[in-house]
Amino acid sequence: MDTQISPEGRMEVLSKAEVNMLLDNSHGGLYQVFRNCALAVLNCGSGLDDGKELLERYPDFEITILQRERGIKLDVKRAPASAFVNGVMIKGIQEHLFAVLRDILFINAEMSAGNKFDLNSTEGVTDVVFHILRNANLLRPQVNPNLVVCWGGHSISGAEYDYTKQVGYQLGLRGMDICTGCGPGAMKGPMKGATIGHAKQRITSGRYIGLTEPGIIAAEAPNPIVNDLVIMPDIEKRLEAFVRTGHAVVVFPGGAGTAEEILYLLGILLHPDNAGLPFPLIFTGPENAADYFRQIDRFIGDTLGARAQEIYQIIINDPTRVAVEVEAGIRKVREFRKQKGDAYYFNWMLKIDREFQHPFEPTHENMRNLALHKNQEVHVLAANLRRAFSGVVAGNVKNQGIRAIEQYGNFEISGDAEMMESMDALLSAFVAQNRMKLPGKAYAPCYRILK
Amino acid sequence: MDTQISPEGRMEVLSKAEVNMLLDNSHGGLYQVFRNCALAVLNCGSGLDDGKELLERYPDFEITILQRERGIKLDVKRAPASAFVNGVMIKGIQEHLFAVLRDILFINAEMSAGNKFDLNSTEGVTDVVFHILRNANLLRPQVNPNLVVCWGGHSISGAEYDYTKQVGYQLGLRGMDICTGCGPGAMKGPMKGATIGHAKQRITSGRYIGLTEPGIIAAEAPNPIVNDLVIMPDIEKRLEAFVRTGHAVVVFPGGAGTAEEILYLLGILLHPDNAGLPFPLIFTGPENAADYFRQIDRFIGDTLGARAQEIYQIIINDPTRVAVEVEAGIRKVREFRKQKGDAYYFNWMLKIDREFQHPFEPTHENMRNLALHKNQEVHVLAANLRRAFSGVVAGNVKNQGIRAIEQYGNFEISGDAEMMESMDALLSAFVAQNRMKLPGKAYAPCYRILK
Amino acid sequence: MDTQISPEGRMEVLSKAEVNMLLDNSHGGLYQVFRNCALAVLNCGSGLDDGKELLERYPDFEITILQRERGIKLDVKRAPASAFVNGVMIKGIQEHLFAVLRDILFINAEMSAGNKFDLNSTEGVTDVVFHILRNANLLRPQVNPNLVVCWGGHSISGAEYDYTKQVGYQLGLRGMDICTGCGPGAMKGPMKGATIGHAKQRITSGRYIGLTEPGIIAAEAPNPIVNDLVIMPDIEKRLEAFVRTGHAVVVFPGGAGTAEEILYLLGILLHPDNAGLPFPLIFTGPENAADYFRQIDRFIGDTLGARAQEIYQIIINDPTRVAVEVEAGIRKVREFRKQKGDAYYFNWMLKIDREFQHPFEPTHENMRNLALHKNQEVHVLAANLRRAFSGVVAGNVKNQGIRAIEQYGNFEISGDAEMMESMDALLSAFVAQNRMKLPGKAYAPCYRILK
Amino acid sequence: MDTQISPEGRMEVLSKAEVNMLLDNSHGGLYQVFRNCALAVLNCGSGLDDGKELLERYPDFEITILQRERGIKLDVKRAPASAFVNGVMIKGIQEHLFAVLRDILFINAEMSAGNKFDLNSTEGVTDVVFHILRNANLLRPQVNPNLVVCWGGHSISGAEYDYTKQVGYQLGLRGMDICTGCGPGAMKGPMKGATIGHAKQRITSGRYIGLTEPGIIAAEAPNPIVNDLVIMPDIEKRLEAFVRTGHAVVVFPGGAGTAEEILYLLGILLHPDNAGLPFPLIFTGPENAADYFRQIDRFIGDTLGARAQEIYQIIINDPTRVAVEVEAGIRKVREFRKQKGDAYYFNWMLKIDREFQHPFEPTHENMRNLALHKNQEVHVLAANLRRAFSGVVAGNVKNQGIRAIEQYGNFEISGDAEMMESMDALLSAFVAQNRMKLPGKAYAPCYRILK
Repeated sequence: MDTQISPEGRMEVLSKAEVNMLLDNSHGGLYQVFRNCALAVLNCGSGLDDGKELLERYPDFEITILQRERGIKLDVKRAPASAFVNGVMIKGIQEHLFAVLRDILFINAEMSAGNKFDLNSTEGVTDVVFHILRNANLLRPQVNPNLVVCWGGHSISGAEYDYTKQVGYQLGLRGMDICTGCGPGAMKGPMKGATIGHAKQRITSGRYIGLTEPGIIAAEAPNPIVNDLVIMPDIEKRLEAFVRTGHAVVVFPGGAGTAEEILYLLGILLHPDNAGLPFPLIFTGPENAADYFRQIDRFIGDTLGARAQEIYQIIINDPTRVAVEVEAGIRKVREFRKQKGDAYYFNWMLKIDREFQHPFEPTHENMRNLALHKNQEVHVLAANLRRAFSGVVAGNVKNQGIRAIEQYGNFEISGDAEMMESMDALLSAFVAQNRMKLPGKAYAPCYRILK
Repeated sequence: MDTQISPEGRMEVLSKAEVNMLLDNSHGGLYQVFRNCALAVLNCGSGLDDGKELLERYPDFEITILQRERGIKLDVKRAPASAFVNGVMIKGIQEHLFAVLRDILFINAEMSAGNKFDLNSTEGVTDVVFHILRNANLLRPQVNPNLVVCWGGHSISGAEYDYTKQVGYQLGLRGMDICTGCGPGAMKGPMKGATIGHAKQRITSGRYIGLTEPGIIAAEAPNPIVNDLVIMPDIEKRLEAFVRTGHAVVVFPGGAGTAEEILYLLGILLHPDNAGLPFPLIFTGPENAADYFRQIDRFIGDTLGARAQEIYQIIINDPTRVAVEVEAGIRKVREFRKQKGDAYYFNWMLKIDREFQHPFEPTHENMRNLALHKNQEVHVLAANLRRAFSGVVAGNVKNQGIRAIEQYGNFEISGDAEMMESMDALLSAFVAQNRMKLPGKAYAPCYRILK
Repeated sequence: MDTQISPEGRMEVLSKAEVNMLLDNSHGGLYQVFRNCALAVLNCGSGLDDGKELLERYPDFEITILQRERGIKLDVKRAPASAFVNGVMIKGIQEHLFAVLRDILFINAEMSAGNKFDLNSTEGVTDVVFHILRNANLLRPQVNPNLVVCWGGHSISGAEYDYTKQVGYQLGLRGMDICTGCGPGAMKGPMKGATIGHAKQRITSGRYIGLTEPGIIAAEAPNPIVNDLVIMPDIEKRLEAFVRTGHAVVVFPGGAGTAEEILYLLGILLHPDNAGLPFPLIFTGPENAADYFRQIDRFIGDTLGARAQEIYQIIINDPTRVAVEVEAGIRKVREFRKQKGDAYYFNWMLKIDREFQHPFEPTHENMRNLALHKNQEVHVLAANLRRAFSGVVAGNVKNQGIRAIEQYGNFEISGDAEMMESMDALLSAFVAQNRMKLPGKAYAPCYRILK
Repeated sequence: MDTQISPEGRMEVLSKAEVNMLLDNSHGGLYQVFRNCALAVLNCGSGLDDGKELLERYPDFEITILQRERGIKLDVKRAPASAFVNGVMIKGIQEHLFAVLRDILFINAEMSAGNKFDLNSTEGVTDVVFHILRNANLLRPQVNPNLVVCWGGHSISGAEYDYTKQVGYQLGLRGMDICTGCGPGAMKGPMKGATIGHAKQRITSGRYIGLTEPGIIAAEAPNPIVNDLVIMPDIEKRLEAFVRTGHAVVVFPGGAGTAEEILYLLGILLHPDNAGLPFPLIFTGPENAADYFRQIDRFIGDTLGARAQEIYQIIINDPTRVAVEVEAGIRKVREFRKQKGDAYYFNWMLKIDREFQHPFEPTHENMRNLALHKNQEVHVLAANLRRAFSGVVAGNVKNQGIRAIEQYGNFEISGDAEMMESMDALLSAFVAQNRMKLPGKAYAPCYRILK
């Protein structure tokens, strides 16, 4: 399908200089990223979780910025037909498309111009995260804390999916909003459930926030319910966006990506500066996920120790209790922020170390060199473990990662024998439980644990 | 659970005289109806389709009107816990409860006072239907025709349920609103689908209208998505409300109730005065419903003739085409109303004969005496066939009907041999396909066809 | 100017029966009232205060109800051009026109049908007032008490007018809404002032309520700022509407009409049942109105006694203090209503005696027979004094009254010598101060005090 | 009065880096400008038009930025009491205060950081104007052209003031919004009139835009109706903001400032590149302003020639015709922009030469050296004449200008004899008609024409 669409909102009123900047950027190196993210957004609802396959399926897709005296238009050629109704692009997808334009081309250019941000300081990185989120109109003052981040796998069982819906429903009934990483599975279920909860309570202002990044968006396209989409520049800034805007985190069963997220958050909360800072964190799933979480819990105990295990609660098969605990936890967050004078919409006080901000590039070399041993501070170890899982995600579903594996073979991961044992057990379990990829395809591991 | 709730909207500003009237009514004969409908509303989402069973499960449930200087409150005692979150009644259920108060006690009293309405004339009955709907704020001027009535069974297969969601989704994507008879199955699926369609198109004003009546509400409790609930006084006025407010009708597979609705509408559209009046009517279902509709179509051909078969379209397994046809049909409705100066929100021009307005009481005697033969005008025959199916519905799921069958045995239905053959075949098929009751229970027929 | 306009709001969705009723009514005896009120509304802003003159200026003006399938239209012929911009009727005037239709034809018919209201009981009359106000959407629940009724003359000096604006401004700054009797002078100034106050405080929901009645509307056409216009059936119901919806009353200098209003309210508040009921009442004006209020105060002392004088406060030349006192008074009203469970939007607890509800027809005979002596309960005396002033207003500005005076000569008023002395002094002062009619015309008294 | 206030809108969600930047700026050289503008805003409604006097009246006034974890607060000390109601700052003034913070400290810092804007190119200056306006949320897409800029004196006669209200009223009735330079007189009247017009048409979204600059704000404080205040950095950018956002300009009688504005606009419209660009420009006033405009017209004819006289229309004493012509003119603007693809909210196509963008500093030397002769292109002459009047305004009402005159004596203006004659006549007329300063003070000229 071909069409031309006009922007609404942030991209609607642009100066001539900004339009020129967009045109310049769209012709430069950013075009591929822009095009691919746009395609991912247009392809939402297709049930595809393979970034490479998506790109190969629409080789002729094109998106161009047209300059008008008054601003811009987007010219879309050979887009997936599912994005249209009666020849008109679905409104929500149109919004997502301009979110891509805003976050890939506009913000990028803004950020690179004039050395406004110092990306070498942790303050500078946090400032960038703040600016991207504010520019996306995500930071809303004068709203009580109510944003629940839901993490979990995109490939989960039907029972698990239903469970995520039930938790979302109970959260929605309590007026909570949902933030996930976009995509299917545990990232869609809570939003669907919350939608029904909100409808029952006649809440029409429910927010369904999707935070993604260019590498993952093709594999985990934003589902239609997302009404606030932000594409962060990389995984690390995406993770920082989650923990600075969310008031509580609920983790459902998932695979390597979920493990990455858990390790990221534990690593941060284990930092001495964050002692005393309330941050509700709940692991939950249906009855048959009990084993899964026991395994995760053991892995955390084995690697990061008992103190890390105190940070979260595990609740099995009780959506109402999850919602009640989240509510109680957020009440404490609210009191804390109020007392400290911190914003409700951005967790300024949370200390995030450089280790967790610096982008990790999962090359074969970097993967091989990860320091996975206990001879380091526990939050630094968490950071390194996080990187290991991040690499596995890339090799599983990201276009670049898949190509690298095709070219150079599997990643090699090594470290303390005991830790490697633990890690191997966990990853094998993910494979056995089909958590690495959507079902229907045999999973070929992209890593090798060197013991 | 016990609680006290204050009204919002229509019941919020009452005169002292009205409060007294409500108190009087609530102590009189209407109390049982009021209490039972209230219980049905509070019990939504329980998955029960048996009016009698519901009442027996909550024998101690009580609802009382409290008089305050400024108006009223409702005092609810021993209500189902599922209606509450953190001890507070869910907002949507609260609204439904006051819809019950408004439609059972308030409107009833208004109508009976002062002989305002002449229920012996067809104009008078239509006037009553209009007043109830307007009082419920259902008639909205200055809105383009977009209300699609969805009929179909409450007990349908998973595949059929998914199909109703897909049709609803395609309708929602096209900005259509949904009106059903409340309850589960084909009455819930289209609303759920439309909700997602509306969300994708960023339509926040979507309407999910439920039209019910005191006899059926316990068996088909309003699902949570319904944001406009009206309890009409009886089946006939409920059916009239459907066809006067809806701009198109989509029929999914169903049982006796669905057959009743089809016959009602065909009977009206076959009336000579309605020739030329556009009224889109589509029968649709998934692939495996093809046989079902072939059977329905044959029954209609056998009884009402070929002309009746021209009134509807049958579309199998094509949700998009259903939506496209509905859209096209409604465009014609719009042009017709515009040209005739008729309202978009109420189909004044549709002729509805006395035969279709007069409440039919399905006693054993009335059932036995139905004139089911071809020796009458075809729209009158349709009216009588409608009554036959109406009786079967009562015997299946309504509190009073079930009790009558328990007491006096099955209804007896007789008529032209050929017609009885046809009818028997159809009803047997409904039984065989589990369309009479929710699965999990053996169905014991409540009727006997005398051939 | 000729035009056809479609209704919005309450009159937009009518049943066929209601349309017929409107048509019937519009052809019957109510047509003149309807036409004349419509003309008054269309003539707003003309600076005319003479009902008779208005009617004579537009002898060919016509307004007809057109029946459409979907409802009605109004066909307006030869209307004042000032009501139009570029050939399109000003939106506010259009709304006022449908308020006239609603209150003159629709409500009247509703009320007369079916003996719904018992106009012989005080409860019945109050019920009528309530129904008219609710039907006009004037009674808004869940709003804190903030409605200040402003009374005062339509013919006041420039300094007095500016003062009413300043008081309105101070009230508006404090979030108060304004209710007056429509028309110019003290009924327009506070609204204008409040508009600016509201704008400064960014209050966009400010209400400017006009309560009028068919006899006075031509003389005191609703000014453009009025965004809620209600035409009550007669003076007494209009006065009841003021005191049941207003939370405080501010009285500016005025003539006979203002005296009527003061006596009405004092009479009610002097009723033993209303002892203890908080009702802020403030008389205020600029420096040069000090004498005026001294005179009013003396007249009240002379006739109703010291207890009546305790009911109000006189504040000279201090708009801020007026607003502060109103605020404080309304806080007490709020606490009282809350404690008693009474509505904020309608003062149910205020006792209004039959004496103050029964319409007084100012015929020559009725005027002559008024019992103006101290040998009666003080609130009954107040009622009779109120009637005397009511008659003077009719003779001054109302179409019927002016014609009666032309035909039969001046009204004759008699009573206790001392009281007559007081009354004569007061009325003479009104005349001397040009408070009887808009300046520019010599005032010819319509009454004669018999001493 | 002392208080602390929290920001709303644009200044509500700030990054830590931005808060630090604000704190830095507020301690640097910008503090005086910030403080003085804040004082001007707080002093609105005082009836003072002397920047120097204002500052001297509140020598102890202080405003400080307080840093909070979540953002900022403003700490205000010894502010004029008129800005408060019951101890709470009036909402509109609060908004204006944060507009000052935004435009003086925030935008300034943004602009100076990183060389984002090239102030040496005309595109760069226009870009700055665009950014300031967009940052103030003034540029609204998807709104039809309806913004009428009203220019004219702050010191005008009562009759002239009433006339500006009537014109504003007629514009408001036609759905037009108003933009002026803030302050009293011709800058307040049209807004007041439009408010009433909007109210009559039930337009609640009316915009009353005030564009000012630090030098003039003290003399012409924003009146309370202004609901969008922007403080541009200097006169030239303020003038550019007027002509790029306004869709038509109406000029009422005024003094030197009005002459400056007229010359600015004529100079631009005389530029060859702007030939064919529709720009409605109307000079209007009441009957007794006929002479005034004849004089202005003659001055323009004498200096800029007949072609300049064709650019505007003079309409005497006919508010309705002014509104009708504005409407017709704006229709043409709309068509032109649509055809050219230009924005409705910003006139990108209007060519503004460097001559009109470069800030003119009215020192004694610069004033003396102005090239006021015909030996140059007519639009350059217009630019120089504009500068001459700009200097006179500074000497009349601006703090710096007044001080310069006190120190060095009057400005000296010289040029072609004939032109000086014309100019002298015009300025003398302004003096004679009290257009230089608010009445009540003798006007001492601040200039000397050298002939």
